[in-house]
Parts: sequence; C-alpha cells; structure tokens
Amino acid sequence: MTEISVPTIQDIKAAHQQLYDQIRLTPVWQWKGDVSEEAVGRDTQVYLKMELFQYAGSFKPRGALMNMHNLTSTQLEKGVTAVSAGNHAIAVAYAAKSMNTTAKVVMPKSANKYRVEKCRSLGAEVELVDDVHLAFDRVEEIKEQEGRAFIHPFEGRLAALGTATVGLELHQEVPDLDAVIVPIGGGGLCAGISSAIKQLNPQCKVFGVEPEGADSMSKSLKSGKPESIEKVATIADSLGAPHAAPYSFALCQKFVNDVVLVTDQELASAMKLTFEELKLAVEPAGASALAALVGPLKYRLEGKKVGLILCGTNINTEAFNQILEQYL
Amino acid sequence: MTEISVPTIQDIKAAHQQLYDQIRLTPVWQWKGDVSEEAVGRDTQVYLKMELFQYAGSFKPRGALMNMHNLTSTQLEKGVTAVSAGNHAIAVAYAAKSMNTTAKVVMPKSANKYRVEKCRSLGAEVELVDDVHLAFDRVEEIKEQEGRAFIHPFEGRLAALGTATVGLELHQEVPDLDAVIVPIGGGGLCAGISSAIKQLNPQCKVFGVEPEGADSMSKSLKSGKPESIEKVATIADSLGAPHAAPYSFALCQKFVNDVVLVTDQELASAMKLTFEELKLAVEPAGASALAALVGPLKYRLEGKKVGLILCGTNINTEAFNQILEQYL
Repeated sequence: MTEISVPTIQDIKAAHQQLYDQIRLTPVWQWKGDVSEEAVGRDTQVYLKMELFQYAGSFKPRGALMNMHNLTSTQLEKGVTAVSAGNHAIAVAYAAKSMNTTAKVVMPKSANKYRVEKCRSLGAEVELVDDVHLAFDRVEEIKEQEGRAFIHPFEGRLAALGTATVGLELHQEVPDLDAVIVPIGGGGLCAGISSAIKQLNPQCKVFGVEPEGADSMSKSLKSGKPESIEKVATIADSLGAPHAAPYSFALCQKFVNDVVLVTDQELASAMKLTFEELKLAVEPAGASALAALVGPLKYRLEGKKVGLILCGTNINTEAFNQILEQYL
Repeated sequence: MTEISVPTIQDIKAAHQQLYDQIRLTPVWQWKGDVSEEAVGRDTQVYLKMELFQYAGSFKPRGALMNMHNLTSTQLEKGVTAVSAGNHAIAVAYAAKSMNTTAKVVMPKSANKYRVEKCRSLGAEVELVDDVHLAFDRVEEIKEQEGRAFIHPFEGRLAALGTATVGLELHQEVPDLDAVIVPIGGGGLCAGISSAIKQLNPQCKVFGVEPEGADSMSKSLKSGKPESIEKVATIADSLGAPHAAPYSFALCQKFVNDVVLVTDQELASAMKLTFEELKLAVEPAGASALAALVGPLKYRLEGKKVGLILCGTNINTEAFNQILEQYL
C-alpha cells in the first residue's frame, strides 16, 4: 500500500474552524421512538447525526468548501465546476455561492428535476447532457476553456477533511459510542468520519453500509485495492459510485471495521420507518445507516450505543412515492 | 360571555414543571432554507416549533398528561378512556403508559391502521367501532362499567394548560416574535398557546389557521359564540372538529387576533414543501401553519419574525402519497 497522509485530529479541528460559518452544526438526537426497541434490537441506544439538515441537504458542502478554501484567490475567481446527478451538484452550487464565486455544474438529463432546480435556485449554471460519460467530457472542456477548478465529489484529502468534521461533531456530542454506521458511495464520507472517530475513540467500531448493487468498497476491501464494479444497480442513487478511489479506499482500509450490504427493499423499508417513526423525509442513501442497523447489524449491535449518519436527503415527493410503491 | 378562568403564566409554568419528565422539550429551529425567501415573503424570519417530534408524534400528550395528573390516585388506578381517530388516541396511550396506568381507546374503524397500531404498541387496548357516534356511546359504557376517566381531546382548563406549555417553550426560545400561527381543530392548542404568548408578549399577534372545510372556530368568532358546522370536509383529519367548545372558544376569543382558512390543496402543497425543503414528514395538520404563512398570511407577515407551530404528525407513507397524488 502506498503511504497516505491521514488527516490528524488537529487537521480535522482546523478544518472545522475553517468551515464553521458556512455549515450548520447539525444536531445529534437520541432516538427514543415509540416503537424503536423492536426495530433496532433490545437496549440498543441510537444516536442520529442529522446531517440531512445541512445546507444544501447533505454533508457534501463540507468537502466542497474545503476544496474551495484551498484554491488561490485567482482560481476561486474563475469559479468551479463539477459533475453530479445530485447532492454534490447542489453542494457545489451552495459552496460557490457561500464563497462568492460561480459554479457551472454538468448534470445528466436523467437527473431529478427537483435537484436541477435546487442547483439553479442556489445560483449555479446547470448544463444538462445526455449521459454521465458526456458529462465528464463536457466538464473537461469547461476546465480548459473557462479555467474553472474541478471539485471532485468525494476523493482526496480535502474532501476527507471536510467529511471528517461530521465525525468530529458526532464525537463531541456523544464521546462514548460503541459503533458508528456510515453510508458509502465513493467512500469519501466514510473515509473522513472513520478517520475522526477512530483517532478520537479507538474502541468505537466503524461500519460502512453499501447497497448490494453498488458494492465497490466491499469488493475493494476484500481484494485489498480499489475496485470498479461492472454496473451500478440500486435505488440509492447518491451511493451509486462505480469505483472506489485510492485515497478514500486507503482511509477506509485503515479505519473501517466492516462494510455491510443492504438491499433496495431494505432501503425502502428504512425510508418508510424513518418517515413514520422519525418524521423525516429521506432519500435511500439517507436511510441506509438505519437500514443496516435494523437489518444486517441488528443483533451484532444489540445493546450498544450506536451512531447513525443520516447523511443527507434531496428527494422530491414523487420520487419518494415511486420507490415505496415499487418496493413495499 | 361567561367569566372564564384564564391560565396565568404562573399556572402555565407550574404545568410545565409538572410535565417536564414526561414530555420532550421540542426544539425551535430557524428556517434558513435554500429557497425559503420566495415562499414565505421577503425578509420574513421563520421559527418552527417542532412539536411533531413530541412523544406520540404530536402536542396531544401535554393536555392528556395534565388531565391525568389531576386525577386522584384511585381514579388513575382505574385507568382512562378516550375517543379519537388519531393523535389524541396515541397521546392517551402514551400518557397512560407514562403514568403507569392503562388506557382503553375507542376508535372508528375508518381510523388509519398505522395510528391504531401506534396505540397498541404503546400498550393501549383499542376498540374499533363502526363510526364515531357509536364510539361516543361505547366510551360512555366504558366509563360506567370500568370507572375509567374520560380524557377529552381538547376542551377544558387542564388541556389548555398543557397546550400552553408549547407557547411557553416557544417564547423562552424566541421571546420577540411578531406573530405566531397555530393550527385549530377543536381549538385547544390555540387556546393554550395564545394564552401563553399574549400574556408573555402582548404585542405578538396570534393567528389561528383552519381548513376551509372545518371552520368552526372562524364561524364561532364571527358569531361570538361556539358554533357547530354541518359537516367536516378536509384532508386535515386532525383538525376536523365539528364544533368549537366553550372554554377553548373563550380563550381564543380573548387572545387570538385572527383566524385564516386554507384549502386542501394549500395543505397538500405545504406538505410537499415541508418534505422537500424542511426534510420533514408531516400530516396535513402539521403543515397547516406553513400553509397559512405561504398562503393567506404571506404578505401580511412579510418581514416579520414569525413562529409556526408544527403541531404533530402521525401519517404513514401510503396516506401521505395518496393526498399528494390527489391534490397536486
């Protein structure tokens, strides 16, 4: 394995300071639901890191902002660009606005209209292209022609420093967790959170959760190197990364205890549970940590003090309904 | 008008002390949504009293508990009974459990299954009867035969003392509101909150909001006495009271500045807005204060500091979807 530069706690705290005015310190709630016990296992204490209430609807602004803070003022003036069908696009739009610069985001035409509108309402210029491959071609053009800085959706030390601040906040609120469950798409969120949690509280276990149809990190951890998967097939579009990237993978390899898989039906059930018990509207990715806790990790974490990352939600009612009708 | 005993601030604070261990101090959030400005009017500051996170999913335990605290120990031992299709039934189930006694709640067969199950999961015995008239007959029998105390869903000084604690908490969090918008069904919530707010901050305006198809309080305030309406026709089942009751009416008459009406479509739109912008899953009643702010009160409250009571939510995904599909 190549040597990687692990974000230290000091680095993470400095990042948190840097982001402080631009992000919400999202609350941590203990779930004392009326019927939580049977769902999550006897005496399991559940703490929810409510990152879905973050600006732009997900944790993504933390990484995007860290990247933008590290641009030179000349670079920042030229603006930024990104490719995304969803939360990252919205986050970059928000972050650019917050940094007083401009964003041009390239989205596939298949992107949910609600998300496209969110980007626009945050002041970003949105270009719609036929598919995600064309999107990457287009963003290369934009970089060259307009000098805009490309903001990666999850990879790199700055992105991980950003996501690590979620772990820092969770630890500050509940310092003695036995376990934390973190959704994995590309792995940037889990890379950062696991770095923070494991260095602050080494005995806390960190579990990743991936959809069965987007299990690039599971495969990578098994093989010992970043793997691609042939196709992404999951309702959790925000977790649908086709491959693990080296830096995120290396941190996850170092700090994550295990990654579990959940089915689309388990995700849909967790969305329903979140709606009906927690009164929260979440997309599949936002429900995935809970899906893991009421599913594959239920008995393994019984009686433990568990933190769940509700990493975000940008879904409209139509898409929500469609998923529940199809899977439940 | 007959003389009524208005709950004083001292009474309300004492009630709050009494309930303290049995209710959640629900948070107040300032809504800094990404697109809130255009929805709510320029420079309007919106504070949300998140009573939907209350135990049992609504403000209703506050009143139910106040009633139970005022039973003798002999009465309390015999248990309680109530008639409700929804939030009150769940609240009485929760409150009885919290007071270490038993509840038998009578619900119409048409009640949402999710709500029936919530009552049962909280340990209440549920009796299903053909309609709401039979429910009242049955509860009379239960009172007589089993000696159970009847817990009214909204009327009376104790219920108002309970709901007034919502107003007290809101005021403690944001003492300088210009206006508060409170949903009205029977009027118990508004009676209590308006009593608290107007005595703590007399210049704050209190607006009630009713569905067009359940406007008993509007009619009552116009005529100057508690009125019944011929039929209730609204998707906001939790606000569907067929008449205003004397005590609640008298407090509303004394403390409420105005009551506005919203249509079912406005309620459905506000549910969608709440889902997509606030990431919260609410039933129509829980969205009604927001419906008033983005609807009939938008320009009247422009630039003001406004508190909205998100009074509760117990709705399953199926009912939520059905409403949105029908009205939007």
